[in-house]
Amino acid sequence: MSTCVFCAIVEGTAPSRIVYRDDAVIGFLDIRPVTRGHTLIVPREHSSGLADLEPDVGARLFAAGQRLAAAMKSCTLSADGVNLVVNDGRAAFQTVFHTHLHVVPRHDGDKLSFAKGLVVRRDNDPDTTAEILRSALEGDPR
Amino acid sequence: MSTCVFCAIVEGTAPSRIVYRDDAVIGFLDIRPVTRGHTLIVPREHSSGLADLEPDVGARLFAAGQRLAAAMKSCTLSADGVNLVVNDGRAAFQTVFHTHLHVVPRHDGDKLSFAKGLVVRRDNDPDTTAEILRSALEGDPR
Ligand SMILES: [Zn+2]
Ligand SMILES: [Zn+2]
Repeated sequence: MSTCVFCAIVEGTAPSRIVYRDDAVIGFLDIRPVTRGHTLIVPREHSSGLADLEPDVGARLFAAGQRLAAAMKSCTLSADGVNLVVNDGRAAFQTVFHTHLHVVPRHDGDKLSFAKGLVVRRDNDPDTTAEILRSALEGDPR
Repeated sequence: MSTCVFCAIVEGTAPSRIVYRDDAVIGFLDIRPVTRGHTLIVPREHSSGLADLEPDVGARLFAAGQRLAAAMKSCTLSADGVNLVVNDGRAAFQTVFHTHLHVVPRHDGDKLSFAKGLVVRRDNDPDTTAEILRSALEGDPR
């Protein structure tokens, strides 16, 4: 028996409302939706986050999110917009450590305070910041 | 001359601090960072949002986000976590209508109110919600 709740959902040993499945990922309703239809897409194979997620599977995760976004707009949920969100790491609000993509249907004027109170931080030295990231990516073997 | 500011950045006719580029996407610092290193990844080819984004390009967008997330953790920005976010549509807080993925480095205790005040909505009939989404996805020709 898995101790990871999302693995248990993938295995069918924990209850869920699955709305999407392919050979790489499944999608099911978030039990604590921020809007109606809020879905989580998870890889079938366990990874705790972006660091141990196979890039090919990450691509499939996003592709499923894109399909689900289209479905949310076309169906009777008639979403006006969609947020796709990965919270990677506790510092980024991740609470279940099986990689997942939130797909959140949005409506005009839904007053969801998803990103409200978002404060813009001044970066006093963006040139250095850019250089740090460029260097880090150059060292990336992929 | 393009009237889309992100196309202009891709074309090199608008200034930006580019940190990443491959043949499908480029990444540059957000001029209004919510944290230091906040980067936007955009497809080189214009699309306004998820609906007209080529799925192959979406996969490349996510892959670049995953690489950037790793870089943000390994470099001196030493992120503890990362948020990957696509805001698709005005209702979802999209402001520039050229598809983009936010890559936001996070730190333990950074107090970023990114998702604070996020209210959980009760869905009184999640079974119906799930059925609506399943049906919409079954009708999906892809
Ligand atoms: Zn798992
Ligand atoms: Zn554009």
